[in-house]
Amino acid sequence: MIEQRRADGSLRHLITLETLRRDEIESLLLRSQHFARAIGERPPTGRSLQGVTIANLFTEPSTRTRVSFELAGRRLGAEVVNLEVQLSSRVKGESMLDTIFTLQALHFDVFVIRDAEPGVLAHVSSHVAAGVSVLSAGEAHLSHPTQGLLDALTIRQHKGSIEPLSIAIVGDIRHSRVARSAYQVLRILQAHEIRIVAPPALMPEAHEFVGCPRFETLERGLEGVDVIMMLRIQKERFAETAIPDGEEYFLRYGLTPARLARARPDAIVMHPQPMNRGIEIASDIADGPQSVIRSQVSNGVAVRMAVLETVASRLSS
Amino acid sequence: MIEQRRADGSLRHLITLETLRRDEIESLLLRSQHFARAIGERPPTGRSLQGVTIANLFTEPSTRTRVSFELAGRRLGAEVVNLEVQLSSRVKGESMLDTIFTLQALHFDVFVIRDAEPGVLAHVSSHVAAGVSVLSAGEAHLSHPTQGLLDALTIRQHKGSIEPLSIAIVGDIRHSRVARSAYQVLRILQAHEIRIVAPPALMPEAHEFVGCPRFETLERGLEGVDVIMMLRIQKERFAETAIPDGEEYFLRYGLTPARLARARPDAIVMHPQPMNRGIEIASDIADGPQSVIRSQVSNGVAVRMAVLETVASRLSS
Amino acid sequence: MIEQRRADGSLRHLITLETLRRDEIESLLLRSQHFARAIGERPPTGRSLQGVTIANLFTEPSTRTRVSFELAGRRLGAEVVNLEVQLSSRVKGESMLDTIFTLQALHFDVFVIRDAEPGVLAHVSSHVAAGVSVLSAGEAHLSHPTQGLLDALTIRQHKGSIEPLSIAIVGDIRHSRVARSAYQVLRILQAHEIRIVAPPALMPEAHEFVGCPRFETLERGLEGVDVIMMLRIQKERFAETAIPDGEEYFLRYGLTPARLARARPDAIVMHPQPMNRGIEIASDIADGPQSVIRSQVSNGVAVRMAVLETVASRLSS
Repeated sequence: MIEQRRADGSLRHLITLETLRRDEIESLLLRSQHFARAIGERPPTGRSLQGVTIANLFTEPSTRTRVSFELAGRRLGAEVVNLEVQLSSRVKGESMLDTIFTLQALHFDVFVIRDAEPGVLAHVSSHVAAGVSVLSAGEAHLSHPTQGLLDALTIRQHKGSIEPLSIAIVGDIRHSRVARSAYQVLRILQAHEIRIVAPPALMPEAHEFVGCPRFETLERGLEGVDVIMMLRIQKERFAETAIPDGEEYFLRYGLTPARLARARPDAIVMHPQPMNRGIEIASDIADGPQSVIRSQVSNGVAVRMAVLETVASRLSS
Repeated sequence: MIEQRRADGSLRHLITLETLRRDEIESLLLRSQHFARAIGERPPTGRSLQGVTIANLFTEPSTRTRVSFELAGRRLGAEVVNLEVQLSSRVKGESMLDTIFTLQALHFDVFVIRDAEPGVLAHVSSHVAAGVSVLSAGEAHLSHPTQGLLDALTIRQHKGSIEPLSIAIVGDIRHSRVARSAYQVLRILQAHEIRIVAPPALMPEAHEFVGCPRFETLERGLEGVDVIMMLRIQKERFAETAIPDGEEYFLRYGLTPARLARARPDAIVMHPQPMNRGIEIASDIADGPQSVIRSQVSNGVAVRMAVLETVASRLSS
Repeated sequence: MIEQRRADGSLRHLITLETLRRDEIESLLLRSQHFARAIGERPPTGRSLQGVTIANLFTEPSTRTRVSFELAGRRLGAEVVNLEVQLSSRVKGESMLDTIFTLQALHFDVFVIRDAEPGVLAHVSSHVAAGVSVLSAGEAHLSHPTQGLLDALTIRQHKGSIEPLSIAIVGDIRHSRVARSAYQVLRILQAHEIRIVAPPALMPEAHEFVGCPRFETLERGLEGVDVIMMLRIQKERFAETAIPDGEEYFLRYGLTPARLARARPDAIVMHPQPMNRGIEIASDIADGPQSVIRSQVSNGVAVRMAVLETVASRLSS
């Protein structure tokens, strides 16, 4: 098990939401809400990370998440440096840790890491010096904790309490770190029901998503839900798995107005982006009145400010 | 027509100089002169863009222009983030706007965009939220407004009023956004004469550069002019068009001391860079006493400070 | 000879340590020690470079050195811009100087340059404007002055005075700028003995490393030394030269515990990184009690702060 806390119980790393307590989640969401601003408003700034140096180590491309961490850090006064380094443990012996030790010696305080290889984050977090924090910006298919938090924050803003809600996670759940982190945070916040909706080839293993009703058609899966969380379908899945491609996928598994009508009339539609319009989601829905997709992006900066401040601020908190 | 102004008449976007009024140009040049410094002097700094976040979206490479916008923003206190994103509308449906909406949700205030595809800037500017400005850093062969302003500023500094001047634009005018923006700003500032000088294959269409005398030899085109604006010849033109390549081009269309002698003795020589020395311009002239090429670069930062401040400053202006 | 000083004798460029006086080295080391912090401590910050703009021009990849200069500059208040430009004089006539003149016109104060081509740094430094400084971040096989300074600083911290010490530089000395800068600084600081230890194919020319005893086996070369400076072996050397590859190299020229035991019991082990563990150095030694490798990295930021401040600070010094 990954130890994410310091000896005094405070949060030091954020690699998975799975083992956080409800009060820790609530505290992060409260602080995130403090930093949240509507699109068009000026973003908040502060000095709580002054003197803090953050490394963005993205070994998979991700403009949106990388920039979101970068702005979150800089708007609170931190120095943020984007690095192109390889962290894979497969390549050359202990060189991953040498890279980390080198960066640590440059007095980086926080490593924000996105990596396609499961376990890299846990490995790094178990070796860094006492004053250093490790934050996941996406790990393989396993975990994307700040995405989970921003999803929870977005649901709260639009629906109030999460406890009474029925929430459907829809699409390529099998390969999705977004789905796993969403499941973890919504379970901790005691959502009434978390459904997973996917073609058989994209369903997760049976031992995962414990307690979630499973549906193979959107028509049934969306019936009466309050929240629809769409996932991005990777186009390479069409070749790898027994699912129809492109337009045919849309016909069978895309979110169309007819399918959306099965949900509650006030249901919200979410998507982690980037979207494949016309494949997993109809454009009219993505831009429609029930979509909260752009709020999710905006909340991403707020959540990352809250997380960075929580793990790295030197001010009394 | 692209709407570049807010309802109150103030400048919001800068995508083309073509539709600006003379007083708007004058105001931008006046503010640019305020920020201009000789090479070797300290650049001015300020806080008028504090709290402003600027995205540099360059889908064509351009170290000089990108860094110039970056320094302009940072020296006035803005956060500037360089992004490598694709904005082409050709690639995948509405994804260009999704990218823009995503960045907007991260609370970017200004998008500085360089793009090879005509119309991308207008498309983006017509979709961004009310508080967001779009600035061109070069659009296809059409427009490069900050280059046009820095050229006008440089001429003013060396020649005083632009009205009495004869100005020759020389080289690959057909494919040049620099030439088009220069023409637009010099026309608005009522230059006495704007000549275009080019081999037939590099002449623009007949309906463009209205009112400009056309010359096919430098010998005649430079006769008695006050200002010579050389353009960069792209080496791929030698293969595409009926013009001689390399050394032969220089012999026929390069700016040599003998040709320069046709201009007024106090004529200045300009070039937007990077230069092909020995192809479109002799090295001795590029580094000679009539060259103001390095002043152009330096004025580029001043102009971009003025433009950024004009569209994005939250201080009373 | 490269002129690194201003008319008033103060240091303007840092391209080689070879021609520095002892008092200049001492002064840089004293200031570096002022900025040095143990790993885990907060790095120092200041404003002595406020208003200064630094260009990082790395034409060879180097995350560690580039980031080290970037953090050094930013922690003292400078603007630092990373540029990807080509500086080679081979490619296209005078374009290298055009690039430099362009950057100069953007009011950069310092160019930090890493380049694989000998002479580029001297060429640039002899052409930049009076207010501009040029710092080497590694030049071909010739010079890496900030590495030499950080090595000297690290030795001082662990061993006190350098004068009584026997120091062995081990490995691919022939191709190493690290070795050359170490030799220069240690000679100026009057180290008792500087040995060079290398397979014959990796020995430098006879006229280099004047006064250094040469050893072809580690067993003899490490006998009784106080400091062991290991070098990285480039894997392409195995193909190019008559040296055994990989494991066989380790067996014959790697630093093993048995070979380390030949040195003084309190000897320190250094390496400029990145390390090839199991090729030039045993992992146990790299991570062992005699290793000061991570201190070297940390000292790198301190040295670069001192050098930047020395050449570029506008405050009275």
